[in-house]
Amino acid sequence: MRSDVTAAAAALGATFPGVTPPDAQALRDAQARQRDLTKPPGSLGRLEDVGCWVASCQGQCPPRELARVRVVVFAGDHGIARAGVSAFPPDVTAQMVRNFRRGGAAVNAIADSVGAGVRVVDVAVDGHLPGADRSVDDDAADHDADPVRAYKVRAASGRIDREDALSAEETITAIGAGRAIADEEVDAGADLLIAGDMGIGNTTPATAIVATLTGLEPVVAVGRGTGIDDAAWMRKTAAIRDAMFRARHFVGDPVALLRTIGGADLAAMAGFLAQASVRRTPVVLDGLIATAAALVAAQLAPGCPDWWLAGHRSAEPAHDAALERLHKQPLLDFGMRLGEGTGALTAVPVVRAAVATLSNMSTFADAGVSGAAD
Amino acid sequence: MRSDVTAAAAALGATFPGVTPPDAQALRDAQARQRDLTKPPGSLGRLEDVGCWVASCQGQCPPRELARVRVVVFAGDHGIARAGVSAFPPDVTAQMVRNFRRGGAAVNAIADSVGAGVRVVDVAVDGHLPGADRSVDDDAADHDADPVRAYKVRAASGRIDREDALSAEETITAIGAGRAIADEEVDAGADLLIAGDMGIGNTTPATAIVATLTGLEPVVAVGRGTGIDDAAWMRKTAAIRDAMFRARHFVGDPVALLRTIGGADLAAMAGFLAQASVRRTPVVLDGLIATAAALVAAQLAPGCPDWWLAGHRSAEPAHDAALERLHKQPLLDFGMRLGEGTGALTAVPVVRAAVATLSNMSTFADAGVSGAAD
Repeated sequence: MRSDVTAAAAALGATFPGVTPPDAQALRDAQARQRDLTKPPGSLGRLEDVGCWVASCQGQCPPRELARVRVVVFAGDHGIARAGVSAFPPDVTAQMVRNFRRGGAAVNAIADSVGAGVRVVDVAVDGHLPGADRSVDDDAADHDADPVRAYKVRAASGRIDREDALSAEETITAIGAGRAIADEEVDAGADLLIAGDMGIGNTTPATAIVATLTGLEPVVAVGRGTGIDDAAWMRKTAAIRDAMFRARHFVGDPVALLRTIGGADLAAMAGFLAQASVRRTPVVLDGLIATAAALVAAQLAPGCPDWWLAGHRSAEPAHDAALERLHKQPLLDFGMRLGEGTGALTAVPVVRAAVATLSNMSTFADAGVSGAAD
Repeated sequence: MRSDVTAAAAALGATFPGVTPPDAQALRDAQARQRDLTKPPGSLGRLEDVGCWVASCQGQCPPRELARVRVVVFAGDHGIARAGVSAFPPDVTAQMVRNFRRGGAAVNAIADSVGAGVRVVDVAVDGHLPGADRSVDDDAADHDADPVRAYKVRAASGRIDREDALSAEETITAIGAGRAIADEEVDAGADLLIAGDMGIGNTTPATAIVATLTGLEPVVAVGRGTGIDDAAWMRKTAAIRDAMFRARHFVGDPVALLRTIGGADLAAMAGFLAQASVRRTPVVLDGLIATAAALVAAQLAPGCPDWWLAGHRSAEPAHDAALERLHKQPLLDFGMRLGEGTGALTAVPVVRAAVATLSNMSTFADAGVSGAAD
């Protein structure tokens, strides 16, 4: 039962080509190589699986070092933030975009620490960035040419408990924006991609999407977001329940779901994650927002989850449900709940360590080390 | 009830000065700073705690970047390896020391990947390294001057199910060796230390020590080590039971415990871990062998566990019991069981990411970002 929006999507470019799986021969080669390296078989535990996965994504064993890891932070406001569902005022989204550009946010600090590049994209931030007149690198006259705003879809997505997040056209535009950004990153040499998020109120649409697609009750799915009190939690849960009612017919229609209860940021992230898989580029998933977008991407482009690794388990309860639906066991479990791509970035060195062992260790034969006595 | 060995220890230098705790003011400063940074309070989860811990170890907030991380691999053979408790022949210890020196082992690959230095110390490897005559950098004529052998205590520790691992003097010498190595590393500028291990059969004494100190039954404590079959598991369990009987009076006497059922490698690691704390240098603990030595170090120098973070949870069941006794929650849980310091090294980037956020993020005030609406 596809809606007319999906028909439009097909025409306008939200239909993805088939996703081919990672390379099975490279996977077998990597598994065989793990047994030849100077360590007891299996003794690196999950690192061995991660290394083999990277080899299969790259289609070669040993795999190449991951030299260009990129996180794209999709910033967008949400009308629902005006309904008292967040601990922070909506202005913070735009303020944080400025903070990202100046390198002062958690995503910047962790990206520098692990060796990754950060790109910020304003897909639906509400209004102009505050203080732009005072900034050297953010002059108001440059707004039209500003790459941060090159993919802007609208100013704040709609209030999803009462109205659609996006128009049909905006939904397609946003998906296409994420897709174009993934293409740009892959064309520029990215070998590992991360989708990050910034948007006050964005756990509300993300939770509504996850609960809709996994059949979770709102009271079980709703978390504390940025740290809300009990009254805000009740408002948030009511908003999610109302949004889920509005979206109840769209469990099998990802474009309609993004339109009714998603948002431009979530739609762009879904397009980005789907296109990364189309382009055979591995992804480390971040927390609730990215994983909600991933659930939709898995509908837009079946087969793309094979290209994803779960970076961490968020403190948000809906994240667990989304990971379970995707059959993903997260690498890290630190109770992080910041978004921005921070959890995924923190896991990147684990992936690099896995690649390093598979690629750079000696074999028993080369090192003159005796194997197991069996 | 101290043995005469402990009296000798006091005379010879296995008694440690008091360990002072990490700095409480720096901890409070770091906790306050976490609340000022541009993120919802607590939203980086465990990364926030880790960053605060590093600040308290360094006695300053914000903490310095961890620029010189060092892993010292303590290599030693064990007489018990001749009793069929390992999947690998004892010769592999010496072969792997060569592999470390040539950079071909997992510890080398992961250290390179995460940016850490590796030092290998032969404290009780059995015999000369094989193939030394064929190696350019490992010439037989250089053996006496070889820094890898500068702290050699003996060739293979005793078979602990039947005889003491070490003499009283060797025990003190080994503890002192680890202590001297920690001093050397700290004096050379190390700001984070890891104790790694290499030794066929070394999970047998390590498990015996952990089971003795935590009251664990051998059948619960004994794991598969490098990958042993059921028959070897039964031999290993019997050996550990016999060793525990021999050590039953030394639960409160760490030097006697190392002498009877430890080994030169475990004694040196215990001295290393205790001295690192005396020198106020943070440590990331590796798996079963390092954590068994840590349990003993905590007896040698009470208070030193405050300077330690658990890097990972090993697949070895006794490791869990040791971590629990030390009240340590490991950062990573990948089912690794290789030793060499590999699990701890894999966790190092997490510690660095924690430091990077605490030190390099902007505050709400500096970034002009609004705080929570409460």
